[in-house]
Amino acid sequence: MFDTAIIGTGPAGLSAALTLKMRGKDLIWFGSDQFSGKVEKSEKIGNYPGVGMVTGQELNERFRQQAAELDLKVTDRMVTNITDMGSYFMLLADNEVYEARSVLLSTGVVASKTFPGEEALLGRGVSYCATCDGMFYKGKTIAVFCGAARYEHEVNYLADLASKVYLMPAYRPCGISRDNVELITSPIKEVMGTTRVTALRLGSGEELPVDGFFCLRGAIAPATLLPGLKLNGPHIETDRQQATNIAGCFAAGDCTGTPYQIAKAVGEGNIAAHAILDYLAETPDTK
Amino acid sequence: MFDTAIIGTGPAGLSAALTLKMRGKDLIWFGSDQFSGKVEKSEKIGNYPGVGMVTGQELNERFRQQAAELDLKVTDRMVTNITDMGSYFMLLADNEVYEARSVLLSTGVVASKTFPGEEALLGRGVSYCATCDGMFYKGKTIAVFCGAARYEHEVNYLADLASKVYLMPAYRPCGISRDNVELITSPIKEVMGTTRVTALRLGSGEELPVDGFFCLRGAIAPATLLPGLKLNGPHIETDRQQATNIAGCFAAGDCTGTPYQIAKAVGEGNIAAHAILDYLAETPDTK
Repeated sequence: MFDTAIIGTGPAGLSAALTLKMRGKDLIWFGSDQFSGKVEKSEKIGNYPGVGMVTGQELNERFRQQAAELDLKVTDRMVTNITDMGSYFMLLADNEVYEARSVLLSTGVVASKTFPGEEALLGRGVSYCATCDGMFYKGKTIAVFCGAARYEHEVNYLADLASKVYLMPAYRPCGISRDNVELITSPIKEVMGTTRVTALRLGSGEELPVDGFFCLRGAIAPATLLPGLKLNGPHIETDRQQATNIAGCFAAGDCTGTPYQIAKAVGEGNIAAHAILDYLAETPDTK
Repeated sequence: MFDTAIIGTGPAGLSAALTLKMRGKDLIWFGSDQFSGKVEKSEKIGNYPGVGMVTGQELNERFRQQAAELDLKVTDRMVTNITDMGSYFMLLADNEVYEARSVLLSTGVVASKTFPGEEALLGRGVSYCATCDGMFYKGKTIAVFCGAARYEHEVNYLADLASKVYLMPAYRPCGISRDNVELITSPIKEVMGTTRVTALRLGSGEELPVDGFFCLRGAIAPATLLPGLKLNGPHIETDRQQATNIAGCFAAGDCTGTPYQIAKAVGEGNIAAHAILDYLAETPDTK
């Protein structure tokens, strides 16, 4: 049982991780060990105090260094589900289960919306995790939405198992060329099915019969990740202490709203870390 | 008429100043040109992302450099009063009047409480500003509370004018030794008087008859600075956009509450700057 699970290795997650680590908390930190892709791609950053005018690459490198200096380890797994167990949380990441007394969501903004039908059929033919669910589709026909080139190894894993893969990449060019993989360029309009996924309807009007649909995205919409989480439009609603409506669950950074800024994320991560310290001190460890 | 007046050169003020400057706003920035004394005195800072493990001196030096690189000028004057004029603010700093459409309070926490009677007699014998009010006490007897050694030049200025000065320094040793200055070590218990200051009552029980009382502190309690400002205990109450109860007035950093952390201050300064940009865009410049 960890004291805290932090989801996301952007500036908000880092800020919280530094503070919690220095305060001796036992934490698990999920996300890309390369840290924020959004920071990495920022051309110039001039309004983050203390570092002067820097490129996103430079600042991200400093972020990684500082985490390494404090011996902060990143678990490069994607958390696909969080369950509120009342006095603690259960987290599912690449088929492994983790337990933590508190959770910090610092997942960034989910740029892509979910597809119509996707949330209703999640767990019934819709999956976010190739490693977790790929085996169920051995010899079957599946569709895969691939949000970024870095998930192509997961597509390849799925193509090893399924007999046929309809692939919808969100980027160009796509690096996958295999006999059983068919590239679909028409956009996804709906995930179809009543008790289970039966087909995908495309923008062209065509319907592709499939046994399953994998959505490989950089982030999962917060309400899908943790059912019951209160949102404010596309953002997680928090109070001034970064607490969400679920006791023990906090949020910081872009996922809580604008401005989408490094300074704001770092500040909220710091506030959340202190609120988590208070929460852990006040809440008995019942397990 | 400035777009914004920022009060305070700590991390919150700097963060806001960088963002507003980069967005082309016309701002005036009040505070010590040495920046935060609190940061300067921090032995080690390890949880501010992007700078590694640093001393407060090192980080403050980087803050000063970054402000200089953006050509941000600090007006090293103490703002002693802000008046809400409805569509703009009037600020009094060392006897000069400034006007600004919006105000950011990033004044830090006022460590010292006000003395009983001080607020009631402000402007009626109690003054926060030697330059502004010293002349009124030529040849008279005054008491001076000196909060830090850096205000000793103001004490000397007052001693040039007054015939007699009772000096209560908040620190040791005190660098002032003059014939007409008497060092008082007993603590101040009350500022006495009904229509005007008549005396100071000390912890020893003694009453010192005086014509005026100067309080030279690093910061002025927010509600004294801007009457009508809503507080939450000793802190300025703000919403998630750092707006106070007074339209056009925002607050960020330690003055809004705990945690008293650089990351938190920097984050709030950034959020406040963006809220000010929105406010300026939405509010017509009526003057």
